[in-house]
Amino acid sequence: MNYSSLYLAELTDQIIPFWQKHSIDKVNGGFFTCIDEQHQVFDTDKFIWLQCRQVWMFGTFYEKIKPNKEWLDIAENGADFLLKKGHDGNFNWYFSLDQQGNPTIEPYNIFSYTFACLAFSKMFTITKNEKYKEAFEKTFEQIEKRKNNPKGKWNKSISKNRPLKNFALPMILCNLYTEVGTLIPLEIKKQNIELCVFEILNHFWINDKKVLVENTTLEGNYSDTFEGRLVNPGHGLEALWFIMDLGVNYQRKDWINESVDKALLLIEKGWDSLHGGIYYFLDTEGHPPQQLEWDQKLWWVHLEAMICFLKGFELTQKNECLDWFKRIHDYTWNHFRDHINKGEWYGYLNRRGEVLLPLKGGKWKGCFHVPRALLKLHEIALRLSI
Amino acid sequence: MNYSSLYLAELTDQIIPFWQKHSIDKVNGGFFTCIDEQHQVFDTDKFIWLQCRQVWMFGTFYEKIKPNKEWLDIAENGADFLLKKGHDGNFNWYFSLDQQGNPTIEPYNIFSYTFACLAFSKMFTITKNEKYKEAFEKTFEQIEKRKNNPKGKWNKSISKNRPLKNFALPMILCNLYTEVGTLIPLEIKKQNIELCVFEILNHFWINDKKVLVENTTLEGNYSDTFEGRLVNPGHGLEALWFIMDLGVNYQRKDWINESVDKALLLIEKGWDSLHGGIYYFLDTEGHPPQQLEWDQKLWWVHLEAMICFLKGFELTQKNECLDWFKRIHDYTWNHFRDHINKGEWYGYLNRRGEVLLPLKGGKWKGCFHVPRALLKLHEIALRLSI
Repeated sequence: MNYSSLYLAELTDQIIPFWQKHSIDKVNGGFFTCIDEQHQVFDTDKFIWLQCRQVWMFGTFYEKIKPNKEWLDIAENGADFLLKKGHDGNFNWYFSLDQQGNPTIEPYNIFSYTFACLAFSKMFTITKNEKYKEAFEKTFEQIEKRKNNPKGKWNKSISKNRPLKNFALPMILCNLYTEVGTLIPLEIKKQNIELCVFEILNHFWINDKKVLVENTTLEGNYSDTFEGRLVNPGHGLEALWFIMDLGVNYQRKDWINESVDKALLLIEKGWDSLHGGIYYFLDTEGHPPQQLEWDQKLWWVHLEAMICFLKGFELTQKNECLDWFKRIHDYTWNHFRDHINKGEWYGYLNRRGEVLLPLKGGKWKGCFHVPRALLKLHEIALRLSI
Repeated sequence: MNYSSLYLAELTDQIIPFWQKHSIDKVNGGFFTCIDEQHQVFDTDKFIWLQCRQVWMFGTFYEKIKPNKEWLDIAENGADFLLKKGHDGNFNWYFSLDQQGNPTIEPYNIFSYTFACLAFSKMFTITKNEKYKEAFEKTFEQIEKRKNNPKGKWNKSISKNRPLKNFALPMILCNLYTEVGTLIPLEIKKQNIELCVFEILNHFWINDKKVLVENTTLEGNYSDTFEGRLVNPGHGLEALWFIMDLGVNYQRKDWINESVDKALLLIEKGWDSLHGGIYYFLDTEGHPPQQLEWDQKLWWVHLEAMICFLKGFELTQKNECLDWFKRIHDYTWNHFRDHINKGEWYGYLNRRGEVLLPLKGGKWKGCFHVPRALLKLHEIALRLSI
């Protein structure tokens, strides 16, 4: 098996053409993402997370694969739609828009902002157009303002009675700091990265449970509540490869080793030994989780896990990493790839690995995890000559 | 098969003793609801919906089965805990509390208010204590204030760009108006009931799709959006038996006939012909729903469907109703009842009918749908001598 050419062929023959052909709204700008298994658009709403991610992704194809003008045009189409319709005039990013770009859901979600930063930093990198730099900077200011109470007035938790902090924001910031290059001053970046990495490896990692949890107390202690017991193995594995990248950039071999060790422990908990694949959610104590979808198999979980273990193998040469990579590759390739209709992959399988939602894209699945993973896996496999 | 005695025995031998034995917090007041299949409490948070419903339920046992002082004490324990800890002093009802009764989730959910009304109207009926009447009245005033924008500041939808109305509130009000007796003046009740029933049977019923949808435009037209295409068959069947009850109380034979006809159409769409049972969510157009749990089988859906069809049979003598009742009874009794550990039933099965969450109660499942259905089904079956 030559992984490196397999992934590149899948990316350039199937995934990129799928999004090029089916997702572009030539009338209104922006992208459709709700696309069924026959490759028909079944809903025209536009979700800001996914608009941003597709801009970043096509910008990345242009930057990393080849300077194809069509890809740049697609990225610019999305970026300009976002600038015109995606925010309230003050770079507060809505959650979703209708097809014409009228906002339908308020800017309650801070990850719309972080993915906007991802998109505009990439656009600035490849075009050097100052409007993208400005959009990045204004949005980043808003994140700074909101990061201590990300949900703002939409927060339903009464924090004084149950003060918890959430894993997702430091995790996403780890990736953002890697991606933004020189748009954030080096010293500020370094301080923030050290803080985020420390929180993830120490506060969110629960030593006696051998898992990363989604929420802890403000001091970084375990909270025996539904929120505090919640484990999302895919989220954890994705964060751990973000930290491996930071370990490389900042010459922190200790971060790399710790991430790899933790990933190997986490996958033991997350793997479904009966049906294969990685669970979506678990409870640290083995109690029933609140999430009814807990036993489902999601595309992004598996792709992020593949990156985590192949990167871990490249950086540490641990054979356990390669074994896990291969096992997860086999499951993912056999179950998520659509061997009949081709194009983009399925996203949602039931516990047994059967297709649960016959879609290629939806409210939460766009042009992002499959192509990002295929590109990263191709690059790593090429370096490893596998 | 003698349904009437089967249901009464299950209720009095299994379900009531389960909640009496395992759910009472004798130290702090109120009820535990997160109880696993070994009948152990696995989380101590207190959810206002479920606190209210258990008060209503034990009050109903006391009123309808026998005046057992222990049941009254349990209802009073819950009601007094609610009065002391459940609201903000102005009868704005929190969504959840910790074990000691400190609020952890803000009063964002109007159904905490409607279920509080249900609880306090029952407590007033059985005790005649004025404090419960006052709690009912103050809470009802808050519902009136909030009903045009139930989510208040927590509303994330930008209604001016996508004005939709939701099915759940008129549906729950139909039941509340039936339950509150004379606590709301007859004329006001009648006007509101006519409005709610009209909305459900005309606006939320989509004629050419033969389903009730969860959201429509303000004028009651179909909205081809994720929200407007969403069908929750169990929700619909529950609303239809609420309307049958109103049909009996207000001598509206037309409401009864229309509800029964619609229920028979709705169950044809909702039934899973491959694995049996009723789907949790569907999309009117057959597109993939947003809800990852769409194909799961939930206890309350099946119990409400049983009430709907047995009541429909009693009121119209249509054999199709009896056939559907028997089919759903067989599925429900075989799959949701816990034939090994006994006590309360399971709540969440996967599409194949296997237990998905090994719990008897949780954040959304308390002492309500199983006992309410067993009691109502027992009463109807007794009148039918089946």
